[in-house]
Amino acid sequence: MSRKPTLAVVGATGAVGTVMLDILSRREDIWGEIRLVASARSAGKVLSVRGEGVEVRALAPGVFDGVDIAMFDVPDEISADWAPVAVARGAVVVDNSGAFRMDPDVPLVVPEVNGAEITNRPKGIISNPNCTTLAMIDVLGVLHRRWQLTAIVVASYQAASGAGQAGVDRLRDELEVVATDRSLGERPGDVRRAVSEKLGEDSPFPAPLAMNVVPWAGSLREGGWSSEEMKVRNESRKILGIPDLKVSATCVRVPVVTTHSLAVHATFAGRVDVGNARRLLVEAPQIVVMDDPEAGEFPTPVDAVGCDPTFVGRLRQSLDFPKTLELFVSGDNLRKGAALNTAQIAELVAAQLTGA
Amino acid sequence: MSRKPTLAVVGATGAVGTVMLDILSRREDIWGEIRLVASARSAGKVLSVRGEGVEVRALAPGVFDGVDIAMFDVPDEISADWAPVAVARGAVVVDNSGAFRMDPDVPLVVPEVNGAEITNRPKGIISNPNCTTLAMIDVLGVLHRRWQLTAIVVASYQAASGAGQAGVDRLRDELEVVATDRSLGERPGDVRRAVSEKLGEDSPFPAPLAMNVVPWAGSLREGGWSSEEMKVRNESRKILGIPDLKVSATCVRVPVVTTHSLAVHATFAGRVDVGNARRLLVEAPQIVVMDDPEAGEFPTPVDAVGCDPTFVGRLRQSLDFPKTLELFVSGDNLRKGAALNTAQIAELVAAQLTGA
Repeated sequence: MSRKPTLAVVGATGAVGTVMLDILSRREDIWGEIRLVASARSAGKVLSVRGEGVEVRALAPGVFDGVDIAMFDVPDEISADWAPVAVARGAVVVDNSGAFRMDPDVPLVVPEVNGAEITNRPKGIISNPNCTTLAMIDVLGVLHRRWQLTAIVVASYQAASGAGQAGVDRLRDELEVVATDRSLGERPGDVRRAVSEKLGEDSPFPAPLAMNVVPWAGSLREGGWSSEEMKVRNESRKILGIPDLKVSATCVRVPVVTTHSLAVHATFAGRVDVGNARRLLVEAPQIVVMDDPEAGEFPTPVDAVGCDPTFVGRLRQSLDFPKTLELFVSGDNLRKGAALNTAQIAELVAAQLTGA
Repeated sequence: MSRKPTLAVVGATGAVGTVMLDILSRREDIWGEIRLVASARSAGKVLSVRGEGVEVRALAPGVFDGVDIAMFDVPDEISADWAPVAVARGAVVVDNSGAFRMDPDVPLVVPEVNGAEITNRPKGIISNPNCTTLAMIDVLGVLHRRWQLTAIVVASYQAASGAGQAGVDRLRDELEVVATDRSLGERPGDVRRAVSEKLGEDSPFPAPLAMNVVPWAGSLREGGWSSEEMKVRNESRKILGIPDLKVSATCVRVPVVTTHSLAVHATFAGRVDVGNARRLLVEAPQIVVMDDPEAGEFPTPVDAVGCDPTFVGRLRQSLDFPKTLELFVSGDNLRKGAALNTAQIAELVAAQLTGA
């Protein structure tokens, strides 16, 4: 293949799609045509990518004709239906939904961790991991390569945009409600009542998010686990290639617009020297170490948002668990957590297709 | 002693003191005189307790004359100086600061867990635990009595009022700033700049708290640990009476006004049946179980704030750690986390003094 590959972005108008167009406009321009695809409702809209206006086309089998790589940033059921259509028309699909991630014939790829697996795609589909897993996986990948990870205990601090633009809008609306009444938040249920009276009950979250934390994301799985917690477990195992990795995750939504954070208790086959771990992380280009708490340096969402790298800090040796390292990460769930990782996978596939 | 005991409340005008006066006005009235004490700056103010106006007196040795029990809700250094003065004047001190908690001659008491230890007070001082430890300790106490706790891995979601009224005021000011500009929170540092421009840098928190999470509370200890994280470890061991309890805590501040939450990964000597654990917790009067995620039932700060019990939910068997139970707790850090537990200790001492 000598021409530049043609790319389709399916779900171009969503929260992740919007960030994707920004990312495609800033990264090295390896693409020929970039075709934008969305639901019929958004067809005809003109969006800017690489400084040019591009008209959005309605999702239909024909939009994939001549497409080399199709990125999907759409709900699971749309991917499940349409990714095989794109493959049948000759495209390699990079899918950001949960539809194919645990399929043994679909690689689940983070370029810095297991990029070589993109070539092993019998279904023509490559999956992009869940945004919560992605917030920590670059850091864990670096440490695992050196010290062999055996177990993680994770608690998340997940942003509203993990629930899409509707999640962001709801959080902003709720923040306006609670900011106008300085008595709220000190009596049982008063925030719940104020938010419900002003905004109604129709929210992407199962409880108020402003001035609150909500220990639930996704749907119920066996044993009281949430689907989000099961994704962290299963996807970490698959990406890192450790089928028996012990994982325990508690996923909690917090009133942050964008950028997921995680407190990670990571256990290895042997003792890890904190200084060596810090050096390895500093050397990794996709990671920024912020670890001087007395100087106010630690990862926070308002600093990491809009950035490509994962921020890591609070590195410390567990006092009572000799083979365990504690750390705290913040990563933009729309960038590395979604659009950026998808773009990176697509670039690897493009390099393979063009022999670059 | 036949008369009703005299109580002094030192720090009556602070965030915890204010909740204390409310609690003293609502609980069984076992007190004779209630004397209110604060810094000279607040002397002369009249505060309401038990429906009556009481004038605040300035902290001085003489205010403890005739006092049977003195509660201290003041910074560590004030307690360190003045608790011995109160003891010398004949009072038993119940201290909510960190000044004496790890002193082997000072019991650290949670009435439902180790109430009997109030009698063993060679210095005349009893300490009230840190608010973060208190958010989980009733739940852990119940489970430990039955299954023998060996290790906990904890990540906290701590409220602004843990940093006093100044923390609450700062959070509310920051929320007003971010609620007025719906573009904030999507670019690196924009929240930090907006908050700093509008409110200045003088904050009880080392980073913006609105639309953010801040993985730091307290001061730096050896190995990169925060003082707050060390308190959780050391105080849990002392209260539960497990000197070799393995503890790993990550303390994170979140934009919640009042009520701390914790994700707890609790390991026991043997396998714990989740159903039995839930039943034991339901039977404990100081605990409310909210554990039906599909029905939207899980603990959250906006529901638990202003309530006496600890809320617990998200109970589940760890999938990869056979002896481990996962749970999520929310507890009002000014009530059970501070004023309520102090009042309960004072009531136990009063019962002992009066032979009730």
